[in-house]
Amino acid sequence: MSDATAAFDLAAYLTERRQIVDDALDVYLPTAETAVGVETGGPANGRVPVKLYESIRYSIFCGGKRLRPILALAAVEAVGGETAHVMPLACAVECIHTFSLIHDDLPAIDDDAYRRGNPTNHVVYGEAMAILAGDALLALAFELIAHCRLFYPAERVVDALTMVAAASGTRGMVGGQVSDIECEGVSDLDERTVASIHSRKTGALLIASLLAPVRLCEATMEQEDALRTYGTNIGLAFQITDDILDLEGDAAKLGKEVGSDLRQDKATYPKVLGLDMSRLLANQAAEAAINALNAFDHRADPLRAIARYVVERDS
Amino acid sequence: MSDATAAFDLAAYLTERRQIVDDALDVYLPTAETAVGVETGGPANGRVPVKLYESIRYSIFCGGKRLRPILALAAVEAVGGETAHVMPLACAVECIHTFSLIHDDLPAIDDDAYRRGNPTNHVVYGEAMAILAGDALLALAFELIAHCRLFYPAERVVDALTMVAAASGTRGMVGGQVSDIECEGVSDLDERTVASIHSRKTGALLIASLLAPVRLCEATMEQEDALRTYGTNIGLAFQITDDILDLEGDAAKLGKEVGSDLRQDKATYPKVLGLDMSRLLANQAAEAAINALNAFDHRADPLRAIARYVVERDS
Repeated sequence: MSDATAAFDLAAYLTERRQIVDDALDVYLPTAETAVGVETGGPANGRVPVKLYESIRYSIFCGGKRLRPILALAAVEAVGGETAHVMPLACAVECIHTFSLIHDDLPAIDDDAYRRGNPTNHVVYGEAMAILAGDALLALAFELIAHCRLFYPAERVVDALTMVAAASGTRGMVGGQVSDIECEGVSDLDERTVASIHSRKTGALLIASLLAPVRLCEATMEQEDALRTYGTNIGLAFQITDDILDLEGDAAKLGKEVGSDLRQDKATYPKVLGLDMSRLLANQAAEAAINALNAFDHRADPLRAIARYVVERDS
Repeated sequence: MSDATAAFDLAAYLTERRQIVDDALDVYLPTAETAVGVETGGPANGRVPVKLYESIRYSIFCGGKRLRPILALAAVEAVGGETAHVMPLACAVECIHTFSLIHDDLPAIDDDAYRRGNPTNHVVYGEAMAILAGDALLALAFELIAHCRLFYPAERVVDALTMVAAASGTRGMVGGQVSDIECEGVSDLDERTVASIHSRKTGALLIASLLAPVRLCEATMEQEDALRTYGTNIGLAFQITDDILDLEGDAAKLGKEVGSDLRQDKATYPKVLGLDMSRLLANQAAEAAINALNAFDHRADPLRAIARYVVERDS
């Protein structure tokens, strides 16, 4: 770790960025009041889906770390772009992340009752609303990305949107989630299969969170390649650390039960590699992520510090 | 009805268009073989979500009428555009329609076991897969719309995408579905509330299916306004007819049980207006749709014939 990285106050940075992202989400997320074109009143308030807006906001403002939008902003900083202008995209990836959590927590999928210390969406609003809130967040995400044309050429907006859509669908997050479910209880998993599942379920959207915003800012191909390597490695480090925390983390800090992967016999790194080897691999991935940024100047220090944080966090 | 409209062979047109759309969907929908970047093999085939691709294709190729993509192509014809070039967008709206059907049929929402004469997605593939297949179709839809930049200026692609995203989310389809659920069993519904629900649940995507593709083709504002009026009215006519068919249609022709709206005490036009008045309103809406096209030449005949078909169909 360079001195500059050591001197960088990540905790303060994350707190400040989290607040900026939360403020932007509050503006971008619909409310009953902003439900343009829909009249209020009527029996059962049948013309404004008030509970839908509540349900969406409940899960969005439920204590998320905002890692993906913060990565988006940090990547833009690293290439010298204007972070305020990519905010709709940064919020869009958080919407997609939240949509995936709401759906993954459903009884038919992971059946989780708690997330970040709070009851999950379907526990509070019911399964129907949780399914539909997730759906709405995914649609909203693409609307938000389209907003970026205000500051960027439309060709780049289409590029960025394509990256995020591809990272979310069958070849990315959703496909990874299906493979994850299919591999529950499978005894002869190898490391490559676990890596394939997680690179799609978690890695793809993390990488898109870095690359889509810098594509808007006209980053060079070299910069995109470096950020892809960075993203691939922090994705790996992040997922291994998640797996380790699920085994030996502090439930109070995590805000959810531990040991759920074990109970569901999930495809995890500790399962195929053991704890020690998993820890080693996570640290190596964090180092590789930092090394990928060698060509960047001090403006990439937040990204460097985040790579370290990803493996050192306790929640 | 003009002579030209009467002479137009809608049945042959719909059959031909349905085949063209089906062929395009077959190309655009992912398969295990086209899962780019994902290696095959491994335990439980954990690296390719084969069942996900199967589940998506099952619902897409399950006998849909392809009304939305056919409307998209017919609208482009009416404004003198190139139908082949808008095909990714036409397929995208069908993906969104299918995603909404898969999720609406889930046990937590409408709990329907049959659709178009076949078991619904969750009956065949399980709830988890049905949720995720719907999610993947929504993400895929936006990827497909982005493909349109091959033939159209990126600004117009962003416009078209924004229209479709807005029609799908909280202010459109998803919001309408929530209101529909919330109004189940409500006794004092008025016509305006029923209209509001259906204009969002069904109308919004129908209108986007017409307007988004002609925006790509640089239609005039007058043409867009006319098509919006057309879409609003066929949306209304379509929904009222659906409600009537659910009351007195032929289950064999419909491929699903009838009377489900009544059992769930859904917000329908017959419920608030009675059958006779509902029929009258549907016919008036179809006429209004046709009248909206007065400024268009014979190239709008398919749209005119579709307006008639929407109220005369028996399935």
